[in-house]
Amino acid sequence: MSLKLIEKHRSFGGEQCKYSHYSEVLQCDMTFSIYLPSNKEGKKIPLIWWLSGLTCTDDNFSQKSGFQRLAEKYQAAVFIPDTSPRGEQVADDEAWDLGQGAGFYLNATQNPWAKHYNMYTYIIDELTAIASTLVPNFSGEESIMGHSMGGHGALVIGMKNPARFKAISAFSPILSPSQVPWGIKAFTTYLGEDQTSWKEWDASELVKAANVPPVLIMQGTQDDFYPKQLEETLFLENARKNKQEINYKKMEGYDHSYFFIASFLDDHFAFHMKYLR
Amino acid sequence: MSLKLIEKHRSFGGEQCKYSHYSEVLQCDMTFSIYLPSNKEGKKIPLIWWLSGLTCTDDNFSQKSGFQRLAEKYQAAVFIPDTSPRGEQVADDEAWDLGQGAGFYLNATQNPWAKHYNMYTYIIDELTAIASTLVPNFSGEESIMGHSMGGHGALVIGMKNPARFKAISAFSPILSPSQVPWGIKAFTTYLGEDQTSWKEWDASELVKAANVPPVLIMQGTQDDFYPKQLEETLFLENARKNKQEINYKKMEGYDHSYFFIASFLDDHFAFHMKYLR
Repeated sequence: MSLKLIEKHRSFGGEQCKYSHYSEVLQCDMTFSIYLPSNKEGKKIPLIWWLSGLTCTDDNFSQKSGFQRLAEKYQAAVFIPDTSPRGEQVADDEAWDLGQGAGFYLNATQNPWAKHYNMYTYIIDELTAIASTLVPNFSGEESIMGHSMGGHGALVIGMKNPARFKAISAFSPILSPSQVPWGIKAFTTYLGEDQTSWKEWDASELVKAANVPPVLIMQGTQDDFYPKQLEETLFLENARKNKQEINYKKMEGYDHSYFFIASFLDDHFAFHMKYLR
Repeated sequence: MSLKLIEKHRSFGGEQCKYSHYSEVLQCDMTFSIYLPSNKEGKKIPLIWWLSGLTCTDDNFSQKSGFQRLAEKYQAAVFIPDTSPRGEQVADDEAWDLGQGAGFYLNATQNPWAKHYNMYTYIIDELTAIASTLVPNFSGEESIMGHSMGGHGALVIGMKNPARFKAISAFSPILSPSQVPWGIKAFTTYLGEDQTSWKEWDASELVKAANVPPVLIMQGTQDDFYPKQLEETLFLENARKNKQEINYKKMEGYDHSYFFIASFLDDHFAFHMKYLR
């Protein structure tokens, strides 16, 4: 593993860093960002993962959300992966909702995608190993949050690994990818026509499991993608049948942008920290 | 005056808006951004101006600083002009520190710049008239802040209008433009070779005036442009000779980025609000 530090900025007392590395899992060069709080008191530091949405890189959250104020306040490290494999040799599509920038945090099985599009294993294994070397005094406690396609990713990764992730939260997540245009397009492309293979990547299916971590979801009422891509009915219905308590909140007047995320990150960090300490 | 609303996002309870309009002063189409707090209590709202640095537009501060949290907390409106005239018919230069994106907040006297590069009058007259129509329940109280070239702009505009601006603050400002490469290049180009005309746009000269508003300045010690472009000695010396108290702070480890600005906007807003209420 060879990491290269390409940016480091002091931010709210801690450090906002950006690294490049060659990913063995994705077989391409990648970048990611990480915030390390000042840890002036030498305490154990929990780790929160942030997964971004379609077209994003690791920069959107680090530059537009203002999360560093909260990560420093709570003394939590935050790891921000990119949203897909990258590079000229990596399969792509002209559409902005497929290919590079649209990895959907799953492991693809179809060609030409299967070679590089293994974002799930990349995060759950390769980046996890890297994170443990970068977070000094890591407490071992983790949680996960995300936005839109990254909200889908946070729910799927969190619910597939309930022993590991203490809490999950999402802004404007895709909740039923098998039922909505973005998800159907991505799953058909990356996983193939057989919809049985889709179930392990669909939050509305995974919420039927026995052990679901605490979940907070916020959805803006002025979101241009709601409800078409972000329909919540099936997810909430399956959660209710399974007696899973989901904190699903409609936020009046907010849209799909980082202005929405920034406005309520306080609540999301407070929610995560309840379960991380 | 014909304003066109081109973006509106709910943010921290208020509204982050972006407008386009034809500027009579600049003789070109312009955009600007404004934040209007929720004003749930129907109080009088003060107005804070933010001036951005080289290469920026009105988007940098609105998207990267997280200022909306503070504008809502203090119930202040914030007006963010663009940094120069814009458009194909507007004189430009290949260098990033001259021409479009580098208006230096002055009124140019030299051709071909004089026709469009009148950012000072644009802000002090045209945008001011617009602001008064956009801020509901405007208290009439104003202050001004900025970054780098916009820190120079905030100091110059604030000190030229001490009866109007109750406080001035700046991150990493150009303090002695007549002495540093960025300023010498811009002033020679926009104002001509005769340096006597430069004095009215130089903070180190203006700080000799009788009536200087309260000033807070922060400078990061890891700023790549410090001290070459942001040298403070002459400014502070002239302020001291004039018995002007300037709160000039060196911030250990911070660089020239919006990560620095975001980290200390709390302090800047608190400073402004002391004088705005």
